[in-house]
Amino acid sequence: MGDLDGNCSRVESILGQVADCDIAILPEMVITGYPLEDLVLKSGFVSDSRRSVENLAATTTNCAVLLGFADSDPAGAVYNAVAVCQGGEIHGVYHKRHLPNYSVFDEARHFCAGSGSLEVYRIGGVRVGVTICEDLWVENGPAGQLVTGGAELLVVANGSPYYRGKAAQREAMVTATAISSDRPLIYVNLVGGQDELVFDGGSMAANRFGEIVARGPQFDEAVVIVDIEIPELLASDSDLPVINISESRERIDSITPTSFRALDPLAELYGALVLATRDYIRKSGFTDICVGLSGGVDSALVATIAADALGPSHVHCVLMPSRYSSTDSVIDAEALVEQQALNVCTISIESAHKMMREILGPEVGDRGDGLMDENLQARIRGVLLMALSNASGWLVLTTGNKSEAAVGYSTLYGDTAGAYAPIKDVYKTTVYELCHWRNAKEIQEGGNSLIPDSILLKPPSAELRPDQRDDQSLPPYEVLDPLLEAYIEGDRNRVELVEMGFDQNLVARVVNLVDRSEYKRRQTPHGVTVTSKGFGRDRRLPVVNRYRG
Amino acid sequence: MGDLDGNCSRVESILGQVADCDIAILPEMVITGYPLEDLVLKSGFVSDSRRSVENLAATTTNCAVLLGFADSDPAGAVYNAVAVCQGGEIHGVYHKRHLPNYSVFDEARHFCAGSGSLEVYRIGGVRVGVTICEDLWVENGPAGQLVTGGAELLVVANGSPYYRGKAAQREAMVTATAISSDRPLIYVNLVGGQDELVFDGGSMAANRFGEIVARGPQFDEAVVIVDIEIPELLASDSDLPVINISESRERIDSITPTSFRALDPLAELYGALVLATRDYIRKSGFTDICVGLSGGVDSALVATIAADALGPSHVHCVLMPSRYSSTDSVIDAEALVEQQALNVCTISIESAHKMMREILGPEVGDRGDGLMDENLQARIRGVLLMALSNASGWLVLTTGNKSEAAVGYSTLYGDTAGAYAPIKDVYKTTVYELCHWRNAKEIQEGGNSLIPDSILLKPPSAELRPDQRDDQSLPPYEVLDPLLEAYIEGDRNRVELVEMGFDQNLVARVVNLVDRSEYKRRQTPHGVTVTSKGFGRDRRLPVVNRYRG
Repeated sequence: MGDLDGNCSRVESILGQVADCDIAILPEMVITGYPLEDLVLKSGFVSDSRRSVENLAATTTNCAVLLGFADSDPAGAVYNAVAVCQGGEIHGVYHKRHLPNYSVFDEARHFCAGSGSLEVYRIGGVRVGVTICEDLWVENGPAGQLVTGGAELLVVANGSPYYRGKAAQREAMVTATAISSDRPLIYVNLVGGQDELVFDGGSMAANRFGEIVARGPQFDEAVVIVDIEIPELLASDSDLPVINISESRERIDSITPTSFRALDPLAELYGALVLATRDYIRKSGFTDICVGLSGGVDSALVATIAADALGPSHVHCVLMPSRYSSTDSVIDAEALVEQQALNVCTISIESAHKMMREILGPEVGDRGDGLMDENLQARIRGVLLMALSNASGWLVLTTGNKSEAAVGYSTLYGDTAGAYAPIKDVYKTTVYELCHWRNAKEIQEGGNSLIPDSILLKPPSAELRPDQRDDQSLPPYEVLDPLLEAYIEGDRNRVELVEMGFDQNLVARVVNLVDRSEYKRRQTPHGVTVTSKGFGRDRRLPVVNRYRG
Repeated sequence: MGDLDGNCSRVESILGQVADCDIAILPEMVITGYPLEDLVLKSGFVSDSRRSVENLAATTTNCAVLLGFADSDPAGAVYNAVAVCQGGEIHGVYHKRHLPNYSVFDEARHFCAGSGSLEVYRIGGVRVGVTICEDLWVENGPAGQLVTGGAELLVVANGSPYYRGKAAQREAMVTATAISSDRPLIYVNLVGGQDELVFDGGSMAANRFGEIVARGPQFDEAVVIVDIEIPELLASDSDLPVINISESRERIDSITPTSFRALDPLAELYGALVLATRDYIRKSGFTDICVGLSGGVDSALVATIAADALGPSHVHCVLMPSRYSSTDSVIDAEALVEQQALNVCTISIESAHKMMREILGPEVGDRGDGLMDENLQARIRGVLLMALSNASGWLVLTTGNKSEAAVGYSTLYGDTAGAYAPIKDVYKTTVYELCHWRNAKEIQEGGNSLIPDSILLKPPSAELRPDQRDDQSLPPYEVLDPLLEAYIEGDRNRVELVEMGFDQNLVARVVNLVDRSEYKRRQTPHGVTVTSKGFGRDRRLPVVNRYRG
């Protein structure tokens, strides 16, 4: 993000590998990073972006290169753009015409919509129509106009963030567009984590029958070389202006097309969490993380994701048992650490807990029992983790899941204290699924379970008071999670939830908990969005709010 | 916000006071609250809003009433709307045509723009043109079209948030529009705090010469009755459709116009902070706050604002001295408490600090000195304040100012721990100005200084290590604040800042500090925006970001 020189260097090194190709397509905003947010409003940013593309274009050879960047016109209007560069020149610039301004997107805040006449580019003798992301999804949009106007091949540069099920939606759109337009289509998507988004890649090439003939990896960068057959029958005239870039050449038979298999849903989700976590940490300049290990399933999963993201030697687990921690919890946490060869230290919070109660005693008396005491333990742990972070330069990961974030089952400045929340958009039931999936994968590869069974089998508990269990204050997660999903991702109101079959009292209680926890969610760290509506930029509710619909 | 029934009841009670008037104008979105953010996307919200207006309209008598609400059309498009109601009916609905989507506004996310033919309403025999907020600010916009089309009086319903200098901009726009259109204009603005915004009211009526003939109070709700002279010469025909609502009546001489004086800039700013703080606390269901009192100027100002907002008996000051606290600091804090009759308790953090160092010792060794130790003290204080909050039901106010928030001179989960940050958008130099202003006001009213001089005279220090002073790590605030303002509110880049005369090394250092503190600001509580660009919804930068322009 914003690393114009670094991004140009990486593109340059890729171009060296594809010099023999006719066209190299890079994702949306490849030069600047995406989404830029208010960076685009910074004085000088857009001209810096434009200059970077000009400099990079000057180094291009016969292979045409599509470069996403932030462009502006002489009147100062800013566009989400793709430059078509070849032979040391920029031959044309396409401006995105449909600006998404819903969900996580704010493009109407930052860009003007492209307008005016479209054009096609003759590259390798083929008329190529260029569009950007949302433009493909709009009925009667630029993609259709380019085809009608004479494009023989459609290419789309995308910055399409992941959520569960998104890849299938995209593939359906790519297939449908290829079929309806009777043209091959190349869909190139960004890869990498950026704040609360992760871009999953999964680039695709479809032939004119909508068959996927090449596929990029998910959650990993790659150069995918594909030889696209352009049907002869399409070589008709073009109604749109044609910009001639390069002529057709003799077919090079030495090209071996690369392709990758699509991941199954849990592998995809786990991949999203690992990449997002790795990128947030590394791009923030950190190499190591620390995490409080309770012996429960959430912190076990977060430590495992971190180990997969950074390597086990970069993961520092901190056991912070209290007077209420069960012996099993400590044993389970230690087993996890041993199984994965993570670093570990143990700091009992008993003496600090006792001392804090003591100094608060004169002020709070009996009112210090209950909620205050529970939060106190969580906050002492938060202070310890942050102290270790300050002393050792480790980034603190938090371990809260989406079910907890939804109902406010967390302690601000306690278990929510940290820089990044890897599973904040993962419901508790999915946390279990991911643990089982990751264990199964390890076993399949000849290893042992990474997450001990005992962690997966015991009933969830925050262990902040004697014999506490989550199901004393919350319904079982198998009941809670579908209700939360219908309320949050599904945007159903109370009446509709009851009509769906959820118990009326449960609906009232849970919706109330979710609504009243908005203030907490505003102070918790970023984590990656993996559902169609996370608690972040795609759910912007007022904190002070009396609507109870 | 969202309290449809409550808002309707309040409007009803106001209508009782103005039954003899021809027209009652209420602010933008009066029925729903503003800005609604994603509340408007909730299933059922817009129909609830519409139904509330229909029910309220049914109770209207001869006085025409303008009610702001969220409307939708049969196709499901949602509008920012004003209903013109009278005699038990809705006679017409105006849909806002220009949707602000910059700065703190996201209206393109939530609303469709009104379109189609305009209409005017004949009320009390006068043709009235109705618009909403942004519509007035657009050249050749609906206001001009309404005048050309025959409106004799313009009324504008607004939800215009405060920032320093905004009132003067609004008045200039109202005056200019009245003059250029040769029509009287009534500008009605919302009053109250909502999350990080405060609406300052300051409604105005201008005659056709642009003279302000009536003025509502700032930061306070009021019914302002005004008798507007409609020049005879304007009684020409109308090109626009005219909806007849009520005929002209004999002049009622008994109306005594109410009006208020505009506040001077510091009174206005202080008023904004008090109202925003009061509304956040009360609307969140709290009556009392607690705040850590260090003996420094920031916490002194926050305690004073809280006392003005809630009454001194609702303010609970907590002194939490450490081994590094000077005797003067404790004395100063106690003097402040005594002067304002605030509640106070003292909890020394020495034993907890010592204990925490002890249990961390084996893990961190020498690395526990320096940054870790400083943050540790701040975080222990955060834990104590939150414990008192949990035990007593007090809302915690944080005391950080904008200079600190800008350069990251704060401890996450330490001094940033709390629900609301009253002075987060106030630069340190302005903190001093406000203290002096508040003291002078108290003296003028026959009292004594509320904030002891010793607090205002000593050099600022966080007192987290021996003999620490802010100017050891930061430039003097007189130098820092103008640079921050030029970078943040002014959006100047490094080159431009140097051209403005700021020292090149200082620019590099400060800009770097601001950029690198983005992650901290994302986890800090809401506070009111009082400048043209606060750290909140009007400055949305990526956290992971390598742009250093």
